[in-house]
Amino acid sequence: MADMTFPPVSFDTHPSRYVHWKLSVDGAVATLAMCVQEDRPMWPGYELKLNSYDLSVDLELADAVQRLRFEHPEVRAVVVTGGYDRIFCAGANIRMLASASHAFKVNFCKFTNETRCAIEDAATHSGQTWIAALNGTASGGGYELAEACAEIYLVDDGNSAVSLPEVPLLGVLPGTGGLTRLTDKRKVRRDVADLFCTKAEGFKARDAVKYRLVDGSFPRSRWADGIAARARAVVDAAAPRPADAATPVPLPAVQGAITATHMEYRWVTVRIDAHGRLADLVIRAPDEAPRRDATTWALQAWRELDDALLRLRFNHLDVGLITLRAVGDADAVLAHDAALDDGTWFSGEVRAFQARVLRRLDNMAKSLFAIVEPGNAFAGSLFELALAADRSYMLADDDGDNGVRVTSASAGRFPMSSGQTRLAARYPGQPALLARVLAHDGTLDASDAETLELVTATPDSIDWEDEVRIAIEERRSLSPDALTGMEQNLRFGGAETCDTKIFGRLTAWQNWIFQRPNAVGERGALKMFGAPERPVFDFNRT
Amino acid sequence: MADMTFPPVSFDTHPSRYVHWKLSVDGAVATLAMCVQEDRPMWPGYELKLNSYDLSVDLELADAVQRLRFEHPEVRAVVVTGGYDRIFCAGANIRMLASASHAFKVNFCKFTNETRCAIEDAATHSGQTWIAALNGTASGGGYELAEACAEIYLVDDGNSAVSLPEVPLLGVLPGTGGLTRLTDKRKVRRDVADLFCTKAEGFKARDAVKYRLVDGSFPRSRWADGIAARARAVVDAAAPRPADAATPVPLPAVQGAITATHMEYRWVTVRIDAHGRLADLVIRAPDEAPRRDATTWALQAWRELDDALLRLRFNHLDVGLITLRAVGDADAVLAHDAALDDGTWFSGEVRAFQARVLRRLDNMAKSLFAIVEPGNAFAGSLFELALAADRSYMLADDDGDNGVRVTSASAGRFPMSSGQTRLAARYPGQPALLARVLAHDGTLDASDAETLELVTATPDSIDWEDEVRIAIEERRSLSPDALTGMEQNLRFGGAETCDTKIFGRLTAWQNWIFQRPNAVGERGALKMFGAPERPVFDFNRT
Repeated sequence: MADMTFPPVSFDTHPSRYVHWKLSVDGAVATLAMCVQEDRPMWPGYELKLNSYDLSVDLELADAVQRLRFEHPEVRAVVVTGGYDRIFCAGANIRMLASASHAFKVNFCKFTNETRCAIEDAATHSGQTWIAALNGTASGGGYELAEACAEIYLVDDGNSAVSLPEVPLLGVLPGTGGLTRLTDKRKVRRDVADLFCTKAEGFKARDAVKYRLVDGSFPRSRWADGIAARARAVVDAAAPRPADAATPVPLPAVQGAITATHMEYRWVTVRIDAHGRLADLVIRAPDEAPRRDATTWALQAWRELDDALLRLRFNHLDVGLITLRAVGDADAVLAHDAALDDGTWFSGEVRAFQARVLRRLDNMAKSLFAIVEPGNAFAGSLFELALAADRSYMLADDDGDNGVRVTSASAGRFPMSSGQTRLAARYPGQPALLARVLAHDGTLDASDAETLELVTATPDSIDWEDEVRIAIEERRSLSPDALTGMEQNLRFGGAETCDTKIFGRLTAWQNWIFQRPNAVGERGALKMFGAPERPVFDFNRT
Repeated sequence: MADMTFPPVSFDTHPSRYVHWKLSVDGAVATLAMCVQEDRPMWPGYELKLNSYDLSVDLELADAVQRLRFEHPEVRAVVVTGGYDRIFCAGANIRMLASASHAFKVNFCKFTNETRCAIEDAATHSGQTWIAALNGTASGGGYELAEACAEIYLVDDGNSAVSLPEVPLLGVLPGTGGLTRLTDKRKVRRDVADLFCTKAEGFKARDAVKYRLVDGSFPRSRWADGIAARARAVVDAAAPRPADAATPVPLPAVQGAITATHMEYRWVTVRIDAHGRLADLVIRAPDEAPRRDATTWALQAWRELDDALLRLRFNHLDVGLITLRAVGDADAVLAHDAALDDGTWFSGEVRAFQARVLRRLDNMAKSLFAIVEPGNAFAGSLFELALAADRSYMLADDDGDNGVRVTSASAGRFPMSSGQTRLAARYPGQPALLARVLAHDGTLDASDAETLELVTATPDSIDWEDEVRIAIEERRSLSPDALTGMEQNLRFGGAETCDTKIFGRLTAWQNWIFQRPNAVGERGALKMFGAPERPVFDFNRT
């Protein structure tokens, strides 16, 4: 029943090697043109027609979002448009979706959703505002990509339209944020959204403007000028950047020695016990001073962590539990954290990136146990790993050497997708306890951590090995599906936002539909797409 | 592939006919004791051991919640407890769940969830506060029932425990609000919730108190006194009721002539076009003045509507679209609405009940189209049906006779489960439009309704028949699963609450898990429960 029918995925790319996108920068305006090479899909078996995308296309987009922030701080407006005539993007490739395993579909959607959230994050935290310039039809994931942009313009040529045809044509949802951003971000009336999402051909410019599906339109004759004017307006409205933004920071490739059971990076090691369905992830504290380049620990170690998490998701479906360990000099972690308080552009970018990595961690469909032993570096930013974990085990050692450090880094630097801090989310309804923790200065030993409810369990050295081993054994034995559902509910208590609704509510419904015969059965809509016959549905409603 | 393998369900019952519960009232305190007759399941094929429940048990509970409000206004505290020694409730019956169709499981969970929300609604809107007196172990749905109560007490007898064993024993979620109420209502720390939800045997009194899973405990020797004292405290703290609460209002059975294709009540008619997978629901405006008894239109017609909705859910899975029509004298609707403004206890109960029926409508896994034609009664409370619909079609008749009326009833009387009004939810980000609608006095014709964005489409008399027919035809042709998922997302834009998270997020994950082989496959955990062998899992994580 192994779902993994695809070769391992690598996330390394660079604009010079993009296959499907053309990135150009002209002063404060970048243009990212989608020019999908239909004969170069990620894997053989389908063609990427009509600027449709698969993971290989989205990997490059994710890379572009990231590089624009670090390597092009001069850019304040990013125009994403179609590189071919009269088509923007036809969305996720249907043949790819129809042939992909359930697990791949789910992971693919999660990654594309994270990329779209990163586009919004760039506007919010980095002053890089994305503008969707729909030079032709944007359907399905194509329109969903546009929804992630701050502004959407559609060419008014009597032909081009925006549409979300997933429900009528494919029997699935616009699951890459499509439904949620319609109602919660763009505030489209829900009956209009209902009309739109069931109308396969979508709406052309006039109606799309009327229904607020786009922010404006230009005829073809004024298209280039109109988009340029909007980009200029965004640039003019952008707040000035700190002085150091004059010097970009190039991002070298994340280097790691990767095998089927081992990932070894400069600061991160992952060992996979495939028989045990277990991954042990170690992140090491810095042993050198902060620098202003991409090799500084606060950026490189976290990029390695991000890469490892993505590889664990796509290439290690059988891993159900990740034990998280932070080791080394906790003071050095705090020194690097403190260096990011200098108000520079670069520090802001690094902090925002760390926050995105932590949100990626929150969204792992794997159990997370933090293991806190003497010599640990769960301090400051790295303590967030323990706060992100489903459980944390801390050894109550005899001499009290084992300690953790909670700092102001946990008080707002790393918002969850709900907008809350992980620390606040840990203490729902207990503001006094939250305040006590934040007021505490210095190292907390196991007894303190227990009192302050910062960790799940604090076995002493006699019980430690057995208790941790048994906890891991028990976790390994449980239904992986039930755990994924349980963790997704328990991790996101309290506040909800557009993002939590996308990853929690919309995704869960889509995952359900992705299993239903009406979508993926032999005569289901996803399988039958493009065939002359109509799909065959079981019309019973549940 | 028809899922419906059970006989039609009827929702009519009365305390004098309860099989599984004993209701007793002593002054201001009611006691509802669960005494499930294990040899009287809803359908043959399983035994209701250990106070486990099926739909027949929950139907009686729903009836009790409702009757206590109308027939026992003197009651201010409701103690729900186990009627047998040393067991409170073992939750939903596993054999029943394991043998039930996916659709039945989903509908069963939705109904039980609504009943638990009704318990909370009784405390909030009716001053009847439920206290869970766990005289023995409460596991799974048993503990979830307790979570719906305002206070939970567990006997401290060295044996009785609270537990949510769904994940470890059954490979499914505590899906009747269990996970959501832990984090969002009881504010249990999420790693503690993780421990609790993976520990099949749960926690006994001491730990359950420590982790806030219960609000207190008493040893067996002080059990009766302890619970009685808590009930007294709740009664003493209750706000006084309006004077008319001295006279209860008995609820007669909802009478209807029900066949496979037709439901005929006094005020409600449903005609089912089984070939067309379509139900046409007509609710008639009152033709008599308001009365203070259960036959008054505002209560009886809405009870009929509630009954019809439940029957449509359970007995007509193949119906995918309900057309909603309100017909008759709109002024009479407004007169009945106005009569409920008198500040009496009875009017408050009727209004709260109407609000619950509307929330039931919001949660139908069927498309809803409101059809607004001349002679319609979409006014005041009945206009909420149009606001609840996914789409509304309003005939723009030549002489402008076709009108709707929006009144203050749409300004707060009927909160959705999100806490928003349906009118506010219709105008996200457009407070000015909302204010304009609420300021408008009198009838709105199709042109007004279009301008105020109150309806989806206003075809004229030439287009009307074709446009409505085509809309219905198109809807009927779409994937029922994709529609259910789409509607669930579009209907609940904006704010989220415990309730919307239960019906939106938790339910979607549970529905997904309810389809996974790890739960329902031949060797899945739900199927293998009680068997000597362990379930067999595909451990790939998605």
